[in-house]
Amino acid sequence: MKQLNVDLGDRSYPIYIGDGIIEQIGSYFAKHQISSRSPIMVITDDNVASLHLKKVTTHLLESGYKVVEYIVPAGEMSKSLSVLEQIIGKALDAGLDRTSTIIALGGGVVGDLAGFVAASFMRGVKFVQIPTTILAHDSSVGGKVAVNHPKAKNIIGAFHQPQIVLYDTSTLKTLPEREIKAGLSEMIKHGLIWDAEFSKWIDENAEKLLSLDAEALEYGLYNGCKIKSHVVSEDEREHGLRAILNFGHTIGHALEAVAHYNQLLHGEAIAIGMVGAAKLSVRLGYPERIYTETKAAMKKYGLPIQIPGHLDIDEIMKAMLHDKKFKEGKVVFTILKDIGEAHIQSGISIDLIREIVEELRWEE
Amino acid sequence: MKQLNVDLGDRSYPIYIGDGIIEQIGSYFAKHQISSRSPIMVITDDNVASLHLKKVTTHLLESGYKVVEYIVPAGEMSKSLSVLEQIIGKALDAGLDRTSTIIALGGGVVGDLAGFVAASFMRGVKFVQIPTTILAHDSSVGGKVAVNHPKAKNIIGAFHQPQIVLYDTSTLKTLPEREIKAGLSEMIKHGLIWDAEFSKWIDENAEKLLSLDAEALEYGLYNGCKIKSHVVSEDEREHGLRAILNFGHTIGHALEAVAHYNQLLHGEAIAIGMVGAAKLSVRLGYPERIYTETKAAMKKYGLPIQIPGHLDIDEIMKAMLHDKKFKEGKVVFTILKDIGEAHIQSGISIDLIREIVEELRWEE
Repeated sequence: MKQLNVDLGDRSYPIYIGDGIIEQIGSYFAKHQISSRSPIMVITDDNVASLHLKKVTTHLLESGYKVVEYIVPAGEMSKSLSVLEQIIGKALDAGLDRTSTIIALGGGVVGDLAGFVAASFMRGVKFVQIPTTILAHDSSVGGKVAVNHPKAKNIIGAFHQPQIVLYDTSTLKTLPEREIKAGLSEMIKHGLIWDAEFSKWIDENAEKLLSLDAEALEYGLYNGCKIKSHVVSEDEREHGLRAILNFGHTIGHALEAVAHYNQLLHGEAIAIGMVGAAKLSVRLGYPERIYTETKAAMKKYGLPIQIPGHLDIDEIMKAMLHDKKFKEGKVVFTILKDIGEAHIQSGISIDLIREIVEELRWEE
Repeated sequence: MKQLNVDLGDRSYPIYIGDGIIEQIGSYFAKHQISSRSPIMVITDDNVASLHLKKVTTHLLESGYKVVEYIVPAGEMSKSLSVLEQIIGKALDAGLDRTSTIIALGGGVVGDLAGFVAASFMRGVKFVQIPTTILAHDSSVGGKVAVNHPKAKNIIGAFHQPQIVLYDTSTLKTLPEREIKAGLSEMIKHGLIWDAEFSKWIDENAEKLLSLDAEALEYGLYNGCKIKSHVVSEDEREHGLRAILNFGHTIGHALEAVAHYNQLLHGEAIAIGMVGAAKLSVRLGYPERIYTETKAAMKKYGLPIQIPGHLDIDEIMKAMLHDKKFKEGKVVFTILKDIGEAHIQSGISIDLIREIVEELRWEE
């Protein structure tokens, strides 16, 4: 078992990573002042519910907690204000109060939704994350929570840090292969933007990580969370440094949007986006290896590197220019100066970005 | 013109109080880093819009700001998630981004709604309050913002501090008499819970305040804001001390709920509630003058002190026991130990509270 502390002043919290730690949920909760006097609400989706909900609820009940379950349909559609309103209605009916805790049991969608419920219910109650995907090692650090607006993703939200994160690696065994690969995509990103040595380790341990070797997974998730936690500790509300975490995301988000959020997984879209951002880095004068190594990593992990043929370049460019990361009309991009060293570059011409995007169509 | 600084570390902000200060809105905005590169959204209601919106928008346009207006129907019904979603849709269409500012032009309802829009849009943008009621001197300090759930008031919200508050006392001249009285109710409360001397000043200046004498108003609003700001500075997220601001509110909120939020103004409901809490204080052994002076103040300001005959006592008690201020089942009440000295007392019997409520039916 590994423990990592995310250092955010009076909003600091620990992440516990290990095999089977859900079974000790009662003692972790007691250690971190989760009250058993008011009911706890576990929010999850119907996929995760059938795999892991009973275990979580049983251990909580055995530890003397009152538990209310709320199951949403799996998928992005559940991240809406109307689902939030329904969940809060149930919370009120079940007698949750300001001392209650909301648990997110699941991946990024559930974490975002349950996190915004916790942020806004009675102006903020305690929040615990139990991630069940590899991708969630990313979203469980930093407190970004949100729901979608019909016109834009993640546009209604908050910064709300969890009380604790319990990362039980045994829950990952039920993930489909495609989601394992896509989840590792954010881990690869953390190496590329911050830590050349970790990047090398990821390269050398692809087989172990892809086969969910417990020790490799624990080490990889720990390091991925640690890098993100370093960045977030220095810039909790994304005024500067935190934007390096967007490496691969500017193109990635546009691809997701144009593919209507149902053809590319987030990790796949940002894999293509990272290859694009690496190409851009080289075009701006940084070493060629940025591009070759980024691309090699994606291929090694079976991640896509080419923009699918049916996605229209004009639409991708249009979606990108609507991305909220284009601050005040200027085109800002996270690139690499080298492997392990990210940099936020402003004033990049839209024509150059279009060229890169067009080339990504033929990448192989 | 008076200036007060609300001291909340890196979330500190100034409140400017004075006659006609909306006319200098451009220079206040420039002084407080309100960007003119992204559009500003002014949220107001249809009553206030017809009186003050044009003036605000004109001065902003003259100062080089791009302005988007959003007018909601006056009244509590606009504090809903669906109105919030519509406002955010318009903000996206109008090109607001993370550097934009949201202005609340109006009373408590507009402040709560626009504040929660500012708190949640893109996970938080800048927020400016331009209160147009006396009551809003209370809600403009402390950053509590929220919308309602069909099952409960103010249950979905955040703590989001404004960048600045511009309190133009000239806007108060258009208030109906009943709202002037009800607005002064929170000012009376601030004296009673914190400052015997200010309480005495309020008693001596009733005529001036009720006739909106500019100097008296400026002094009274300044002191009311200052007291609230002291309390909030010490306990921003209501873990302890801040609960003294609930003096009169436990009974008051129950009365508002049972009267379906359309028969009693907030200030009227808490006036009755304060008389009840003062009675309770005396019953718990504190000086008789707490009750006599509290009651005399309400009468002097033409505020109600008696529970209207058609409101059912059982329903009032039921509403009170659902109030979120009853922490973990225990009955906690804000009482006075003396004029100017509030105290949070726990472990009060529900029977005693019922007795007090029954007596309030016959108060005169």
